[in-house]
Amino acid sequence: MAKQKKQPRPKAETPKGFRDYFGADVTERKAMLDKIAEVYHRYGFDPLESSAVETVEALGKFLPDVDRPNDGVFAWQEEDDGKWLALRYDMTAPLARVAAQYRNELPSPYRRYTMGPVWRNEKPGPGRFRQFYQCDADTVGAPSVAADTEICAMLADTLEAVGIARGDYVVRVNNRKVLEGVLEAMGVTDPDQQTDVLRTIDKFDKVGEAGVRELLGKGRLDASGAYIDGVGLSDEQAEPVIAFLTSKGVNAGETLANLRAAVGQSGIGAEGVEDLETIATLLAAQGYGPDRIVIDPSVVRGLGYYTGPVYEAELTFEITDEKGRPRQFGSVAGGGRYDDLVKRFTGQAVPATGVSIGVDRLLAALRAKGQDQGTAQGPVVVTVMDRDRMADYQRMATDLRNAGIRAEVYLGNPKNFGNQLKYADKRQSPVAIIQGEDEAARGMVQIKDLVLGAQIAEEASLEEWKSQPAQREVPREDLVQEVRAILDRTP
Amino acid sequence: MAKQKKQPRPKAETPKGFRDYFGADVTERKAMLDKIAEVYHRYGFDPLESSAVETVEALGKFLPDVDRPNDGVFAWQEEDDGKWLALRYDMTAPLARVAAQYRNELPSPYRRYTMGPVWRNEKPGPGRFRQFYQCDADTVGAPSVAADTEICAMLADTLEAVGIARGDYVVRVNNRKVLEGVLEAMGVTDPDQQTDVLRTIDKFDKVGEAGVRELLGKGRLDASGAYIDGVGLSDEQAEPVIAFLTSKGVNAGETLANLRAAVGQSGIGAEGVEDLETIATLLAAQGYGPDRIVIDPSVVRGLGYYTGPVYEAELTFEITDEKGRPRQFGSVAGGGRYDDLVKRFTGQAVPATGVSIGVDRLLAALRAKGQDQGTAQGPVVVTVMDRDRMADYQRMATDLRNAGIRAEVYLGNPKNFGNQLKYADKRQSPVAIIQGEDEAARGMVQIKDLVLGAQIAEEASLEEWKSQPAQREVPREDLVQEVRAILDRTP
Repeated sequence: MAKQKKQPRPKAETPKGFRDYFGADVTERKAMLDKIAEVYHRYGFDPLESSAVETVEALGKFLPDVDRPNDGVFAWQEEDDGKWLALRYDMTAPLARVAAQYRNELPSPYRRYTMGPVWRNEKPGPGRFRQFYQCDADTVGAPSVAADTEICAMLADTLEAVGIARGDYVVRVNNRKVLEGVLEAMGVTDPDQQTDVLRTIDKFDKVGEAGVRELLGKGRLDASGAYIDGVGLSDEQAEPVIAFLTSKGVNAGETLANLRAAVGQSGIGAEGVEDLETIATLLAAQGYGPDRIVIDPSVVRGLGYYTGPVYEAELTFEITDEKGRPRQFGSVAGGGRYDDLVKRFTGQAVPATGVSIGVDRLLAALRAKGQDQGTAQGPVVVTVMDRDRMADYQRMATDLRNAGIRAEVYLGNPKNFGNQLKYADKRQSPVAIIQGEDEAARGMVQIKDLVLGAQIAEEASLEEWKSQPAQREVPREDLVQEVRAILDRTP
Repeated sequence: MAKQKKQPRPKAETPKGFRDYFGADVTERKAMLDKIAEVYHRYGFDPLESSAVETVEALGKFLPDVDRPNDGVFAWQEEDDGKWLALRYDMTAPLARVAAQYRNELPSPYRRYTMGPVWRNEKPGPGRFRQFYQCDADTVGAPSVAADTEICAMLADTLEAVGIARGDYVVRVNNRKVLEGVLEAMGVTDPDQQTDVLRTIDKFDKVGEAGVRELLGKGRLDASGAYIDGVGLSDEQAEPVIAFLTSKGVNAGETLANLRAAVGQSGIGAEGVEDLETIATLLAAQGYGPDRIVIDPSVVRGLGYYTGPVYEAELTFEITDEKGRPRQFGSVAGGGRYDDLVKRFTGQAVPATGVSIGVDRLLAALRAKGQDQGTAQGPVVVTVMDRDRMADYQRMATDLRNAGIRAEVYLGNPKNFGNQLKYADKRQSPVAIIQGEDEAARGMVQIKDLVLGAQIAEEASLEEWKSQPAQREVPREDLVQEVRAILDRTP
């Protein structure tokens, strides 16, 4: 037998690409998700928490001759039956499995929301993690665009509920069918050429109308100096795409008229425009004006993946990027209709439409807007002057807690009092309580306002300090009300 | 190349030993965890959400010559550096890693709580799952038993906060050091024999005092007829164990006196009794009487694992088991002090004490007590009589939602109206809204009280039905207030 090596000490480190969340990072995200769940609930969506683990075949991974699947999921093989299991990489694949598995028990249509971590076996990088939160809402089994409309309205309500003001966001709606119509109007039937056109449309944001014209035609000189081959269409053929991309009018009516022109005689295109018209009508009836939700043909992201309406929520306020330049915050949620959800499992096509909120991005947006300040307050710290009077100190903390005030006794080594105040500082405590033998004998207690104390240390003059001392003595029986008074004063 | 086989349809099934949670199962657990978090927060505990994935070496698994570790965890190997990663199997191992990794940034003592799934690669069985929730609170870096006391008090507060009435639970506290003292008083120094004594103590609940005497001595005839070998101690040697196990007095003072006698001259034993005395004093000062927390030497579970105080929360009310027999609900939480938390990583011993709540068990207890009824209410369902008046129906749902009422429009195929009512039934809707062309022309709407309707169908006489019809017509502009009135009436 090989000689057993002495085990080195393990390294204490989060695995590469994974994160630990502490304190306010946990509570702020939770507070945001709670608000989102409240809106979803009000719209009749039910929570679903599916298993974090799925069979690899349910996830749709194909296992040819390789020992283990490694295309983007974390997977392992079962000991007993050799089956491969994997961590879910999104919330849609599990929904498809659940919708197929429980199709006889679930209501139809089935509206569900889900929030939780997903895992991606990808190379980690800056801002690129291997575990992150997703927050999805989907309606399964509703073919009508009323379902898509509802999700757009819900998305607008959700953004306002978490603290994005009206005017600071817009939900933009487009339709894959209109694009199909455009391709038909162009006479582009070759699937490869269709893909090329889709790719070009995706570049509209970057290269603009003239750039798209070049890329659809002969090609284009890149900013880097490289020549990009064009799709090879004639100017005439390219026209419907340009009409489509530039069809946004001053109101929904004008946009729809432009789109109708862009799709020409195409049947699917006409259907797509009609869908958008229905959406616009339903939104207007529900009071969602263009300040919240607009028909916008420039939404091209995801058009290749979805089969009907697509939608995207964008935050329109400016933030400052790493280099100090102002830029729009951008997209925080997106979704659309995909009509073959459970087909892989049952052979039956079931329509579905849904949205996914970028939890980390939306949370970053709230922080950028200063919406998330003050949610985390440190506890009142009861310091320990006499080790053998621990019961008195615990009693103080209990009294504070019974009054609903967050409080704790210092439980480290009490010998060095300076360490106790440093600890209170690290805990961002608003107040420290001090009671030595002397105060105890007189039935008194010292209350130290740490927020005020920090202000005084930083800026206040001696005069101000005298009129409002950061530390004062109060009777023990007034402890709770005195602390409450300080907390009420603290912003 | 091998011929690629045609893919069979994947099976839509939750992997063996895993579960999916729907609707109320999600919201009820969440509501309970929210209440627990509120108490923990008030005690100054901070949330931690560590990565679900750890390196296998951080989890403390040893990898000799086998290809992959399979001792209880789900693990896989990284592509690039060959490192093994695994899903966490509890919350303590990740806490140890986090406490070591962030030791310079975290406050000391560090109070943290965490809630989330853990994964066990075990053979699934009835009631035995491979993914389940844990909810832990621990204090790291506090050597004093004040930290243990605090957690016991917090545990009592937590149980009351989630809905277990005072008197329906008891937190019992014991101390491993007292047991060490008992072993010392017995003169049992051989580690194997110590283990045998510990095992015997664990059987006290089952076999009673006489049984323990036999097992510590010559042995005992099992209920099944098998003979169980004894530890081989003399009657005199066994005496301290018996004194320990039967030391519970009518109050803490008497129990402590009995324990002091049981440990005799042992130094560690005396220390253990002193610790329990301090705990009793602190609890009394904080107002936690024996109706909530008691010193109880019969808590033996986990004594082998912990190094100081151990505690356990037990629900004392009776439930009916599967076979219709009454039995006590039993333990829902347990914990204790373990003083080598981060030593594996840093070489430095750091004291820690903490509790883990059995989330599923506590939730089952709340259900058994009927605490969790009525948390889930289905949405008001607006039915669709005329497909082309979808905008009107959506407007009704919007009006209801804007008033804070959960509401949705039926989005399935509206052709069969009976299906819509069946759907409302499946959704447990309290109210259905109906508006045909005729009502619309008159500005009216039908409101169907589905709860009352079900009652009438089940039991009411014709007379009652007349005086309080389950369906009636109201003006469209009164929709919200009329629905609200029904919801307020529904329990």
